[in-house]
Order: sequence, then structure tokens, then C-alpha cells
Amino acid sequence: MRLYGFWRSTATWRVRIALAHKGLAYEYRPVHLRRDGGEQNRDEFLALNPMRQVPVLEFEHEGQRVRLTQSIAILELLEELYPSPPLLPASALGRARARELAELVVSGIQPLQNTAVQRWVREALGADEAAWARHWVEKGLGALERRAAESAGRFLVGDALSFADLCLVPQLYFARRFAVDLAPYPTLTRVEAACAALPAFQQAHALAQPDAEG
Amino acid sequence: MRLYGFWRSTATWRVRIALAHKGLAYEYRPVHLRRDGGEQNRDEFLALNPMRQVPVLEFEHEGQRVRLTQSIAILELLEELYPSPPLLPASALGRARARELAELVVSGIQPLQNTAVQRWVREALGADEAAWARHWVEKGLGALERRAAESAGRFLVGDALSFADLCLVPQLYFARRFAVDLAPYPTLTRVEAACAALPAFQQAHALAQPDAEG
Repeated sequence: MRLYGFWRSTATWRVRIALAHKGLAYEYRPVHLRRDGGEQNRDEFLALNPMRQVPVLEFEHEGQRVRLTQSIAILELLEELYPSPPLLPASALGRARARELAELVVSGIQPLQNTAVQRWVREALGADEAAWARHWVEKGLGALERRAAESAGRFLVGDALSFADLCLVPQLYFARRFAVDLAPYPTLTRVEAACAALPAFQQAHALAQPDAEG
Repeated sequence: MRLYGFWRSTATWRVRIALAHKGLAYEYRPVHLRRDGGEQNRDEFLALNPMRQVPVLEFEHEGQRVRLTQSIAILELLEELYPSPPLLPASALGRARARELAELVVSGIQPLQNTAVQRWVREALGADEAAWARHWVEKGLGALERRAAESAGRFLVGDALSFADLCLVPQLYFARRFAVDLAPYPTLTRVEAACAALPAFQQAHALAQPDAEG
């Protein structure tokens, strides 16, 4: 497997945690999202992902060379092909809740603060992209805290690690980087601490990557 | 089942198609996203969904009253509980592709053009929210067309109807409403036409809903 990503890309980070949790080896290909206007905006990258985003996972499956984008699609495929150890709860309702909380981050927060949107807010609208990002991160984390307070145990959905936790941890790292006050989100930071104790989260951490600049 | 939604909300519309395709009856509760600042912004709505978005699906499961948000989480749960007729392809790679293309719309396009974001662009940034929406819709549809051209048959992923098609059709309706030129997306409009011939898509269409204003 080959993973194209960027050390602090939250979407890449989710996939790194899943790969580490399932014990899957992969080659890591850094794509620098900022340098020289972003390597994802070069012509060569278009064939990898026309959305010009990371992550992109390449792998062989039944003799076929496959390229897959979108972190949630990648997580679902890894879960189907390598179900153990699991990243979704055992019950249908538990899985629904995990997917709901994951999607709240994946479509409710991250798209509004990603590299391309921040740049457009700054360059095309002449607005403060950090204030923009904070606004949407705070709105989303507030909703996530409310939902998580109903479902969380050790992790966001009971005591079973799930996609939701994989989405939470990188999102909180981003929030701190943008000086978001995390005091209003005690459930989220408690679950984050539980995740931080797991080797998969340590291996997948942004600052543990070869392209980290932190 | 009870579905809280809005006639032209693209996320609600995806779920309506799934419910119609699987022949599931439901009570429809309109939530007007524009009137008086939006009914989703009233205090009562917070308990339904703290993200202040539709759709919200309420249902009984094994004696439990459940409330679920996020269209993709709802689609995945419906697929698990009512697998026939299916809305995901039979192969793992087919399912991965369907989820990838769905997510390209769900997290790659829709979050950037939804009601709350349009309002923020207009009111907080003083910018043209229609131009903003068009920019992101065109970027996303361009990428979707490229990926779909590799995988499409009658539908976006081969000849099997999937989540991807459920996301495509409402997104193209939105694009037309914002005067996006669809000529550069021949695969997408061809698949849209195939979908439009299916009764589930006709029943679920925005203009066929009791709260439609078109």
C-alpha cells in the first residue's frame, strides 16, 4: 500500500491511525500542501486525485491496481478488507452513531477549514481565514460535544474505538493550532486523552511523520 | 419513521431517494431553512440536531427510540437494516468507489454551499454567496466528472445504483439553480437522466414534496 498525504492533513491522519491500528504496512509519500502553491496543485497530481486533496491510497486488490480517495471511503474499505481489530462498533446502532459523529467532523467541520478554502477566503474574499476557520470549528465541536456526551464511554461511542475517534483527534490538533479554546468540550478532550494512550495514535501523530515540520 | 427535512435540501433529498428505493414509509416533517431566519435555528431544534441541519431521521429499533443525523450515516444504516434492494455495489471495490464518489459530493461540495455557509459569506464577509457557491460546485463537479468517467456505466459506479447517484442528482439540481453550466459534465448529466427515469427519484424529487415552493 502507498499513502499520499501531508503530516498535519487531518484527513490523511485519520487514515494513518486506521492503518496503524490494523497493523498494515505502507509506503508514505508526502505531498506538501503549502510549498510553492501546494504540490497537490501540480499537473502530475491531477491523475492521482482531481480534487487535489490528500489522502490518496494506492494498493493491489485481486490483481488490480486501485487508487482510492476520500478518507471515509478508505476507512470503510479497510474495515471491510481487514475487519480485525475493528474500527466500528458491533451493533448496527453503534455503527450508525460512529458514522454520524465521524461525518460531523468530515463533512461538518473539515471542508470549511481545509487548505484550499482558507486560501480562497484570504485571497479571493480578502477576509481573515483564521477567524473563518475558528468559527466553523467552534460550531462543529459544540455540536459534537453535545452528541458525544450522549454516547461516549471510554471513546466517542461507548467503549469501542471507532471512525469517530479517528476523526476527533486530528480535528482537536487543528483546533489548538488555531487557538480554539477547548474548555467547552470536556467529553471530547477526555476521549482524546484516552486515544493518545494507544500506540496506533502515537505512531500516526502528525509530529511523528517524516515530513513533519512542527 | 419520521424524517425532518426541507424540500430542496440536498442532504434530505439523498435520504428521501433511499427511503423510496427501499419502499420504506415515513412521516415527513418539513423544517423551513429560510423563513424567519430558519426554523433549524430555533431553540426546539437544538435537541433534534445540535448542528442545526437537516435531515434528521427518527425511528424505533429493537424497542429503542433513535434519532440519527448526517445523511451518509443514515444511508449506511438503511443499507444495513434493509439491504434489499441494495444501494451499494456487490464488490468491496465497487462499494469503495460508490462511497468515494458520494463523499466527494457530501464533504467536497455540499458543506461549502449549504444555507449556513452562504449566509455567513454574505452577512459576515460581505461577499457574493452565489459566486462563492458556484466556485466550489464547479471545482467539485469537475473532479466528480473525471472520476465518474472512469467508473460509470448506466450509473456512476457501473450499472448498479448506489449512494453516489443519490448524492449526484440533488447536487445537479442545486448547480442549475445557481446557473452553473453543466456542459463540461457529460457523464454526470447522462447518469442523472438514467436516475430521473426511476420511480424512487421521481417520488423523492424536491418539487414533489409537500413543502415545495418551486
